[in-house]
Formats: sequence, structure tokens, C-alpha cells
Amino acid sequence: MTNFKEIAASLKFNSVIHNFNAGPSILPREVFQQASEAILDFNNMGLSILEIGHRTDAFQSVMDEAQSLLKELMQLNDSKKVLFLHGGASTQFFQVPMNLLDDNATGAYLDCGTWGIKAIKEAKLFGNVNVVASSKDRNYSYIPRQYTIPDDAAYFHYTTNNTIEGTQVAGIPDTHVPLVADMSSDILSEEMDFNRFSLIYAGAQKNIGAAGVNIVVVDEAILGKVNRKLPTMMDYREHIKNGSMLNTPPVFAVYVCMLTLRWLKKQGGVAGIQKINDQKAGLLYSTLESLPMFRLPVPIEDRSKMNVVFTMPDVETEKEFLSVCKSNGMYGVKGHRSVGGFRISLYNALPLSSVEAITDLIKDFAQKKG
Amino acid sequence: MTNFKEIAASLKFNSVIHNFNAGPSILPREVFQQASEAILDFNNMGLSILEIGHRTDAFQSVMDEAQSLLKELMQLNDSKKVLFLHGGASTQFFQVPMNLLDDNATGAYLDCGTWGIKAIKEAKLFGNVNVVASSKDRNYSYIPRQYTIPDDAAYFHYTTNNTIEGTQVAGIPDTHVPLVADMSSDILSEEMDFNRFSLIYAGAQKNIGAAGVNIVVVDEAILGKVNRKLPTMMDYREHIKNGSMLNTPPVFAVYVCMLTLRWLKKQGGVAGIQKINDQKAGLLYSTLESLPMFRLPVPIEDRSKMNVVFTMPDVETEKEFLSVCKSNGMYGVKGHRSVGGFRISLYNALPLSSVEAITDLIKDFAQKKG
Repeated sequence: MTNFKEIAASLKFNSVIHNFNAGPSILPREVFQQASEAILDFNNMGLSILEIGHRTDAFQSVMDEAQSLLKELMQLNDSKKVLFLHGGASTQFFQVPMNLLDDNATGAYLDCGTWGIKAIKEAKLFGNVNVVASSKDRNYSYIPRQYTIPDDAAYFHYTTNNTIEGTQVAGIPDTHVPLVADMSSDILSEEMDFNRFSLIYAGAQKNIGAAGVNIVVVDEAILGKVNRKLPTMMDYREHIKNGSMLNTPPVFAVYVCMLTLRWLKKQGGVAGIQKINDQKAGLLYSTLESLPMFRLPVPIEDRSKMNVVFTMPDVETEKEFLSVCKSNGMYGVKGHRSVGGFRISLYNALPLSSVEAITDLIKDFAQKKG
Repeated sequence: MTNFKEIAASLKFNSVIHNFNAGPSILPREVFQQASEAILDFNNMGLSILEIGHRTDAFQSVMDEAQSLLKELMQLNDSKKVLFLHGGASTQFFQVPMNLLDDNATGAYLDCGTWGIKAIKEAKLFGNVNVVASSKDRNYSYIPRQYTIPDDAAYFHYTTNNTIEGTQVAGIPDTHVPLVADMSSDILSEEMDFNRFSLIYAGAQKNIGAAGVNIVVVDEAILGKVNRKLPTMMDYREHIKNGSMLNTPPVFAVYVCMLTLRWLKKQGGVAGIQKINDQKAGLLYSTLESLPMFRLPVPIEDRSKMNVVFTMPDVETEKEFLSVCKSNGMYGVKGHRSVGGFRISLYNALPLSSVEAITDLIKDFAQKKG
């Protein structure tokens, strides 16, 4: 297979392109090479990964390794079950309350961004919702800090990182009720006591793998307590019982997760990648802060290390900057339409060199514009 | 890119391996090559298809082309909407009644195999189910023919092809109520008036593409009539309104569908592939029928052209045959545990040469054991 690898390595992947996409987003180059190869010949079987049965030993070991790597990297205890489910976080917005929230019970929610708003909307279909705090008053540009989570809530739900608004919750809220978190855009990016959560979910397409699969880490003890009857495919217990293969799983997407988790382990796991993530975010924020041309809407203590959001004084300068980025191979820097300006995403697979390249470009642009 | 293609072509894909997997299953070789290449460099962008945003023009044209190819190949009229959703048919087992069956209404179902049984189970969570006919009495080895579909049913649901039992429904049932069909294992394999159906669904991993995406073709006119409130992600109308991009779609799986549909069009579309499928099934069934050693449990008129099921007189001979298949590179021929014996799947992408190879082997085996 040496020839194949050489050719692959010589292809257009190069240092000229920097991918700051918010998701789907950059993955490690070696993952692309291994995934590309497996589509032609998986495990030297002479078959593509796309044409093998999910009940084969070959795929069973992919699923086993993906689950065990995630457990290891998150340092999960044995009460936590790891599932790779179809769909993304949007499905979890309703699957969580469907499984955990009885008609007359109350789910406590933190309202601090686009994804949380959607989660709250879906929860209301199943039970009562108590929004304990909101940052709507300032266009979700900060994380609320003063709030009380009622002890009788069925659970407390929050989004750890707000991809669109560029905010991130520091630390884990202190509460006695089961903690549920949407970690789609910052999972595995920094050390955290993941065992404090009763349920964690995350669309894979940022730090875990490719779009089309969703990670659920759940404590079995919180399941089976609601009165409603659940559709089989929506019941976490059914997926646990069937080892995350209740139906044909998204085979290739799970394989890409496994490859990405292997890569992460080689980087020194979550602790290792956190060091680089801290450097990346530190360099970009300090550069932007040092230049009066750029405005950072999020207060220091609430800034996301994954999605750096900033604006410029006028639309014309923003257009010009966007065009300079494009001509220098900087992709995916345009901000979400609801926030405007720019968003630079710094997920695990983005190398420090890409951040150095864009900070150089930022400094150069600011100097030229004087 | 010529070098890449040459290397890819020289890899282990060869005439020695024949893939009769029931699903995930064989796809056209050119699809594997194109998909493998896109993971390294999509559309000469210098980026992998796994790292591009789904809102980019590049992916929007993939989604557009996949939808329009499916419309063209199925000759759908304008009232039909085409969706590429997360998950597989198992999700549709409950999503269909959730969208179409009110608490007090009745869905009519044909009970003729493993997948239909699962669909019936999920429908009962939402309303009443009238099982109009069943072939349970003979282990689902035939298709019931004498039954009446009540005119007041909300819809009539059936599975067009039973992957596990090797049966297939010939023709389209005559009814005034909306027709709903699970076509996971025979969609696009033969000509059919697809416009007769109000809703068609199919997991992609047999005739359409890779696992992890599900096709739904729905007539908008039947939607929005139930009283219950639907979770956003479960509401077909929301997906239609958002052009099948309500959330991040399974980008790569949709791309593989597009490539496979392009290939099918080049084969002369559904009419073209049907001719080859008829040849394949004809050759295999006639070979098996000519040899007394093999037993075909399904009566001629109900036999599936996609999944050929047969048994042998004793377990020892079956073991021996399985071992001969393995040593001759014939993969995926073992029957489902609920039926036993053998199952040879003849999906669109399986070349006639593979069927010739296994019929030669079958004849050879029978002669030697003779």
C-alpha cells in the first residue's frame, strides 16, 4: 500500500489551505488518508468499508474500539454507556426529554444560545420547562452566572459551548439534579470531570469525526423512569442492550470517529490537546485584543476556545478582510448571519500553524489599514 | 489525478471477490473510487468532503443533484418531495405513524416479514393497527394475496421486499387509501409506478448508497393532518421546508448516494438495471431449481429478485457448501439466523459475472456431492 500512501500524501492537501469551518470541520490529515484507503480496501479484506455488513467481526471491532477509546479519553466510569447513534444533536433535543421528562415533571434549562433555544422548544413538547437563566437580553453574548437550579427538576440541561455566539461555560454547574449537556462543539477539547454528567450528547462533526453520527454518553441509572411508551429507536435502553447496533449503524461515520479518537490518543489525549488548544485560543484572542480595529463582543471570562467571534467597525472593512482571507486560503471565517462579523473555529484537528497563519494575516491587514 | 486512479484501480478490488452481502452491500466500483478520492480532495477544492460545511455551494449542489437524480430515476411528479434523512428504515417505522396516524385512527398493515412486524409494533404506539393479512402461518415464506384494505384506513403500509425471508410483493396493491411502502431492499431495482405511493422510504445501504442515510419520498398533501405536536426533527414538513437540510445532513452518505444514482443513470436507469437484475435472478433460480440438492422455500410467484433464499437437506452439507463459498471468495451468503440456509443478495451493483461465478460453483458442488 506504500504507493497509495505516497500518492495520497502528494495530493492537494497543503499548507496553503487553512480550514476554520464551524462544522463540518477539519479532521486530522491522517484520518482522511486512512478513511480514503478504507473505502478502497478495508483491513486488507479486498472489500470497501462501505460494502461490509455491520454484523461482521471486522465492523464489530471498529465499534468496540470507538466505544472503548471514547471511554478511555473521557475517563468514564463503568456506569456510563457510550452510544454512536444516527443523526446529530438536533435529534437529541427531543430524544432527551422524551426519555427523561414526564408530562408533569419539569426540566431546568439554561438559555444561552441558538442550540439551547432549540433544545428548550423541543422539551416543551414533553413536559414543563423552567428556564433558570437567559442571556437573551444581550443577544446571547455572555454566559449567565447567577441562577438557581430547583432541587426537584428532572434534570438540568445546558450547552457547554455556543458555536454561533462564541461563548463557553467555564466549569461545571453545581447541582444535585442530573446534569445533561450538549457538548457538540467542545467535547474532548479540554479536561473535565465527564462523570459528573448523567447524559452527554454531541454531534460528531466537530471534534469527534464526520457528520452523520451522534455520540451519547449516558448513565443507565437515569433511564426507564418516564411513564410514556417510547418508540424503539428513541429508547436509549434499547440501544444500550444492542451494543449501539439496534439497527444498521452509520458504519463509515463510526469508522471515522474511531480513526479520529485514535489520533487524539496519540496527541496525549484530552490533556495533550488542551495544551495546544489553549495556545491556539491564547494567540488568536491576544492578537485581536492588541489591535483596536477588531471588536470582541464576548467578555473575557465567557470566551469560547473553540469558536472565536469578532467584528470590525464597518461593513466595508469586513468585506475587504473576508476577501483577503479567501485569497490567502483561509476558509470558513465568515460569522453566522445572526451575529455577523467573523468566526474562526479552532477545533482539535486545526494545527497551531493555521492559527499562526491567520494571526499573521490579521496583523498584516491591521497594519496596512493603519 | 490520473496516478491516483491508476493506483486505486490496481488495488485489491478484483474478480476473485464476490460480495453477496444483504446490506450494507456492494456498490459500484467507480463509486468507491470517486468516494475515496473525494475524501482526499473534493471537487479539486484541496479539502476533503468530510471537512466542508453543508451550507457551502459545493455541498448544496451535491444535495440538489442527488434529489433531482432520484426524481428523474423514479419518474416522480412534482407533488413528490425527496428527502435524505439521518438514520435508516427503523426510524421510519415510528416516524410514519407519528406523522400520519392519529390516536383514534387506524393504519392498515400487511404482516409479511421481519421488517413489517417491527413497523406494526411501532405504529401501535400512535394509533390503531389493522393487520389485513399475514403469512406468519408458514414462517413468512410467502406473500398473502387475499385481503381487503378498509376504505377508512389512514393508510396502507407494506414492505415491498423481505430481505430476510426472500419474498417480494409483485405489483402494487389496489386501494383508495394512501399507500406507504418500505422499499429498503428493492427500490430502483425494477420499473414501478412510484407515483402511486403517498410515502416511500428506504435505508440507502442496499441500492442507493452507504449506510447512515434514509430516503423518504412523500406527497406533501398527506402531511399535517394529525393532531399531535411533532418534534421538529420528526416532522417531514420541516425537512421539506428546509430542503432536506434542517440540520447538518450526513454529508458523505448523501454524496455516495449521488454517485450511485449517477452510475444507475448511466446503466440506463431503472429500466436498464431491471434487465440485468432479471437475468441475474433468472440464472440463479433456474440453477437452484435444476438441482435436487437445493430447496427453495418460497413459491415461484413470491420469490424476491433481490434476495435469493435456499436451504440444503442437512446441516453438514450446508457447512461444507459455506466453506467452499468462503474459499472461493464468495462473501455474505449465509442465511439469516431466523431462516437458516443461504441467502444470496443480488442488488443493483452486483455484476452478472458474480452470479455466473456462484452458479458455476453451485453446479460444481452439486456434481461433486451428486
